[in-house]
Amino acid sequence: MREVAVVGVGHTRFGKWERRTAVELFSEAAQQAMEGAGVEGREVEALFVGSALGDFGEGQAMIQAQCRAELGLGLIPCTRFEGACASSTVAVRDAWMWVASGAYDLVLVGGTERVLPMGTPLATRTFAMAMHSTYEVPAGLTFPGVFALVARLYSRIYGLPLERLREQMAQVSIQNHRHGARNPLAQFYGKYENLKVEEVLSSRMVCDPLTLLDCCPFTDGAAALLLCAGEKARKYTDTPVYILGTGQGAGGPMALFEEELVKPPSRVSSARMAFRQARLEPKDIQVLELHDCFTIAEIVALEAMGFFPEGKAGEAVEEGQTEIGGRIPTNMSGGLIGKGHPIGATGASQVCMIVQQLRGEAPRGNQVDPVPEVGMVDTMGGAYGTLCHLILGRRG
Amino acid sequence: MREVAVVGVGHTRFGKWERRTAVELFSEAAQQAMEGAGVEGREVEALFVGSALGDFGEGQAMIQAQCRAELGLGLIPCTRFEGACASSTVAVRDAWMWVASGAYDLVLVGGTERVLPMGTPLATRTFAMAMHSTYEVPAGLTFPGVFALVARLYSRIYGLPLERLREQMAQVSIQNHRHGARNPLAQFYGKYENLKVEEVLSSRMVCDPLTLLDCCPFTDGAAALLLCAGEKARKYTDTPVYILGTGQGAGGPMALFEEELVKPPSRVSSARMAFRQARLEPKDIQVLELHDCFTIAEIVALEAMGFFPEGKAGEAVEEGQTEIGGRIPTNMSGGLIGKGHPIGATGASQVCMIVQQLRGEAPRGNQVDPVPEVGMVDTMGGAYGTLCHLILGRRG
Repeated sequence: MREVAVVGVGHTRFGKWERRTAVELFSEAAQQAMEGAGVEGREVEALFVGSALGDFGEGQAMIQAQCRAELGLGLIPCTRFEGACASSTVAVRDAWMWVASGAYDLVLVGGTERVLPMGTPLATRTFAMAMHSTYEVPAGLTFPGVFALVARLYSRIYGLPLERLREQMAQVSIQNHRHGARNPLAQFYGKYENLKVEEVLSSRMVCDPLTLLDCCPFTDGAAALLLCAGEKARKYTDTPVYILGTGQGAGGPMALFEEELVKPPSRVSSARMAFRQARLEPKDIQVLELHDCFTIAEIVALEAMGFFPEGKAGEAVEEGQTEIGGRIPTNMSGGLIGKGHPIGATGASQVCMIVQQLRGEAPRGNQVDPVPEVGMVDTMGGAYGTLCHLILGRRG
Repeated sequence: MREVAVVGVGHTRFGKWERRTAVELFSEAAQQAMEGAGVEGREVEALFVGSALGDFGEGQAMIQAQCRAELGLGLIPCTRFEGACASSTVAVRDAWMWVASGAYDLVLVGGTERVLPMGTPLATRTFAMAMHSTYEVPAGLTFPGVFALVARLYSRIYGLPLERLREQMAQVSIQNHRHGARNPLAQFYGKYENLKVEEVLSSRMVCDPLTLLDCCPFTDGAAALLLCAGEKARKYTDTPVYILGTGQGAGGPMALFEEELVKPPSRVSSARMAFRQARLEPKDIQVLELHDCFTIAEIVALEAMGFFPEGKAGEAVEEGQTEIGGRIPTNMSGGLIGKGHPIGATGASQVCMIVQQLRGEAPRGNQVDPVPEVGMVDTMGGAYGTLCHLILGRRG
């Protein structure tokens, strides 16, 4: 397999887009990526698009074909991936393979989603379809419900009083909202820069113990990347970022996890696959974007990936270990909580944010200093149904 | 890239499945494939699933994770592909790449769909979402509408009176229904063995000039394949079938095709990609499964792929050129018209049917004799939105 580099990134503002379709949002992100790399549409050899709810949200299935036409690309292979929230991370991993194998030299990959027009009740219900339709959905389980269960189980297993855990979770919310407030691309840009623990704890209860500020929002947006064969990367950019490792795993339904719901084996195995391929360990990662759909999700992700011991990640967050200068600066973009969560676009957005960090182009206050050499992306779809990891570095 | 072989196939009966979910149907097909090859679940390194309407039909998004659990596979990468009717052909092509590149030695791939519980009006409307949701769907266009337009345009462009074209189309229906009547896996097994032209012409009008017998049915079903590295194929089977070439293309929206709607460039380029990779030409193909969602669709597919000159495929069908002993035996399984069309499962089913032919295991009356060396699959998603081609052979 040969080296693969990210040579262009594009990212719409995340938030509410009332007058533009998911196809149009994708085009904005893709054109940014192409213009940045000086690439013409006819040069792109294949398109990979992550999209989760487009059929429901806008009545648009097979969105990849429409994105191709909107961008004026050739009659190239266009593939859509659906892995719930991890849809576009899986798309990036697949695009990586097609370039790494030598089949293509230059491909476009990304994700797009418009969720807000659906409204929260319908979006929550539709979204829950990523769980098992026979065993889980009829039980009334939604994703806030899943992670409320995870929080309670975590508290019990690690003997951490729920009130203490809630304070640690609040700290995740405070940090990610602060990062998001500084990120012009984030849904909550300019908001929630200085949340207090008490504000998080006392915000509206969504699913006990998760309050509104423990939850990521629904979001509209798109993100796109150009991948190219490593040896040709300098043709397009002075700051290529290489894909060093990829991993993917699957798990569920939830009943099969039992107590492992706080350290899901599907995430452990996916992260290990990426570390093994990159020949790196958690200690080598200098900046991390992970799947904080809820505050507790960040805590369990940090532990499953091996950054902190079991039951200890919340404490580490409180100590500033996930901030600049700490052990592993995490979700410096704001993450899902502060930047927003346009489901099928989230993974591609995470990759864009890591590329930004590795290029030293992150917003003031969010840029890790010195500019990191190696970053990592963690995305989860469903209730640990799909996990996908990518490790990126400034050197191939 | 190394050689990739199909070493196991599984296929549910196509038809109406009232008491089983799409996940359960996939498991039946996958278990057949695994048992045939003597493969245990823990040996499978990745899963690739095509599914188009599962979110709407059964409220099951991210079906790949549920299929994994149902089959008891490991925590392996599981990826879902949605390319409308071509969903699982694209899944097979992608699975081929992951094995060809050397990343995996043994993977499971297939498709599954349950459409009949939706009922025809909802299924037709939902299915139409694979066209452009801004430009095409609001115009009231459905797929019967698209191919009625294609038939009229074909008649005008090639100066073939519509009444003559309808007779040729009827011949496609007669042949494919006859093949399906002999195929125990087909939805219309034992039915319509001896249709007459007049019966096709006078069956219920669906969308002028397409009558009910010009249209494929909606169908429930699943199909699965085991792919493995060519050099290990003999470990699993005495009759490996190799993937010699793959192609994929995208096109649309329809307005951009204009008169090319009768010979869509997306199909021409996808088929050429597969021929080029296999170093073969249309004359080398000895058995063909193509996307006959409507009778006219078979005629235009035969021409776009290069089997007959423009405007001449209908005549060739009437002459028996698509039957055993003719130029290119086509849809010997019954095709979509006779075997049925479980959207996301159709491509994987087509591959199973070609493997059956290449192993000499097709039903009596449908088996090409002598046993063919090389076969081809053509699948179309949407209104030429996604095209995918695979060429398979008994020798690598």
